[in-house]
Amino acid sequence: VGDRVDAGSPLARIGIVGLGLVGGSIAWSLRTAWPSTVVVGVDRTDVVDEALRRGAIDAAAASVADLADADLVVLAAPLTGIISSLDEAARAGLRGVVTDVGSTKRLVLRAARDAGVATFVGGHPMAGAERAGFDYARAGLFDGRPWLVVPPAEAPAAAIARVEHFARALGATPRRMTADEHDRTMAFVSGLPQVVAVSLMRAVGAAAGEAGLAAAGPALVEMTRLAASPVHLWTEIAASNADLMAEALAALVRELGAARDGMAGGAWVEEAFPDARRWRARLDPLVR
Amino acid sequence: VGDRVDAGSPLARIGIVGLGLVGGSIAWSLRTAWPSTVVVGVDRTDVVDEALRRGAIDAAAASVADLADADLVVLAAPLTGIISSLDEAARAGLRGVVTDVGSTKRLVLRAARDAGVATFVGGHPMAGAERAGFDYARAGLFDGRPWLVVPPAEAPAAAIARVEHFARALGATPRRMTADEHDRTMAFVSGLPQVVAVSLMRAVGAAAGEAGLAAAGPALVEMTRLAASPVHLWTEIAASNADLMAEALAALVRELGAARDGMAGGAWVEEAFPDARRWRARLDPLVR
Repeated sequence: VGDRVDAGSPLARIGIVGLGLVGGSIAWSLRTAWPSTVVVGVDRTDVVDEALRRGAIDAAAASVADLADADLVVLAAPLTGIISSLDEAARAGLRGVVTDVGSTKRLVLRAARDAGVATFVGGHPMAGAERAGFDYARAGLFDGRPWLVVPPAEAPAAAIARVEHFARALGATPRRMTADEHDRTMAFVSGLPQVVAVSLMRAVGAAAGEAGLAAAGPALVEMTRLAASPVHLWTEIAASNADLMAEALAALVRELGAARDGMAGGAWVEEAFPDARRWRARLDPLVR
Repeated sequence: VGDRVDAGSPLARIGIVGLGLVGGSIAWSLRTAWPSTVVVGVDRTDVVDEALRRGAIDAAAASVADLADADLVVLAAPLTGIISSLDEAARAGLRGVVTDVGSTKRLVLRAARDAGVATFVGGHPMAGAERAGFDYARAGLFDGRPWLVVPPAEAPAAAIARVEHFARALGATPRRMTADEHDRTMAFVSGLPQVVAVSLMRAVGAAAGEAGLAAAGPALVEMTRLAASPVHLWTEIAASNADLMAEALAALVRELGAARDGMAGGAWVEEAFPDARRWRARLDPLVR
């Protein structure tokens, strides 16, 4: 690992498995970041054909096993796809660094270890868009966004450096953390808002009905936008992170209990509002 | 009540107590809706001077007691101001219809009855803006928005009709309901999102810290925007509606408990996401 390419120069060959929004955006971003890097895509025939035709990739491969000569293989499919690609990578004896972009990391690191992937370093770019698929992929999706880098304890320093170098080339800011830290952070900053949006929409809909909803303002609309999120993405994320999601839900329920108990006297509003406003002021500059 | 003006024609004289965002926007909206109506404002000297200078009102009055000849008196101050204006209106023996724009209605109707206001009909326009004050007031604030009309049981039909006629003239759609229905609906569609935004921001901030917040996406930003709401508005609303807010919080906490229990197996996501998405699809066309 790391011999063929030094820290300052681009990797010669990168494989991307899954050319959806994230995988496709990695391909497009590499075009300007590292124009001499050969980008090889793996996906359904119609998707790779379109990516080739439009120039996002240089070549197509039939499967992960065909990426043996890649310096870096990026698994950019949904979670179940990442897991099965890890098995393929191990069976094919891939020697390059393998990374992924999955939303949950304890599960993926365990799968990479169980499969016996030679050199794996987990990753999770904090970037997305309302619409999925290659059609919505674009260079610049990762600009200025954190790219969480999650190496297993045994990962060689050169492999970690390669993934961080790659993330930086795409315009992202790599931030290293353990799988536990990653999954716990995600349970709070990503999973909890999702579950709250769905739960809030259901509780308000059931109690207020359509007549009550007609009296709602833009605040409810904004706070329930995530309630239209697709099921398929979240079934896997929720299941793989259920224990830490339970912790996050318990923390929120404690807050809501304090709100209920301190509302009549005004004490909760006086204490909680300024505290929430301070956190909010710190959040705003951190997220575009 | 209702003799001087028939249902089709504008009221001759309207008093507005409090020329902030809502009171000021009522004044501006009346300018185009009912240009022949004399609009009399009551507020701090600098505010009425500005409203007179810019032409939003025709005359200033020193107090509620000076509005004896108004066909309609609109109390548009914050809640404590509405309560004390009701006392003034009763002491001055105002004979015109008195209405208000306060966010909580059981409290206001009780105060109007206790004070002995001759003819009171509660109101609550579902319109607002990020910034308060006369400077942000504008004609059109109420266009297409619901205006909840909350008469006490003993209110004369002509008084209710006058308030509904007035709301319609401002571009709003009057919707009649009881004070209980109003406060319960508001606890769910307005109070609950507010408390959730504050509680979510505190729970996530405390657990994730600034490092974790840096990994947040636009979803958390959007779901905690209300966490920057001003304390002073909410202390009164929360205190006056604490019992129904407790009901709304309990309904949400039940949902969150179901989420926690059904997350590992995927059952909750499979059931709750489609249900929330259906409610969300009904909410969207109802709110601009």
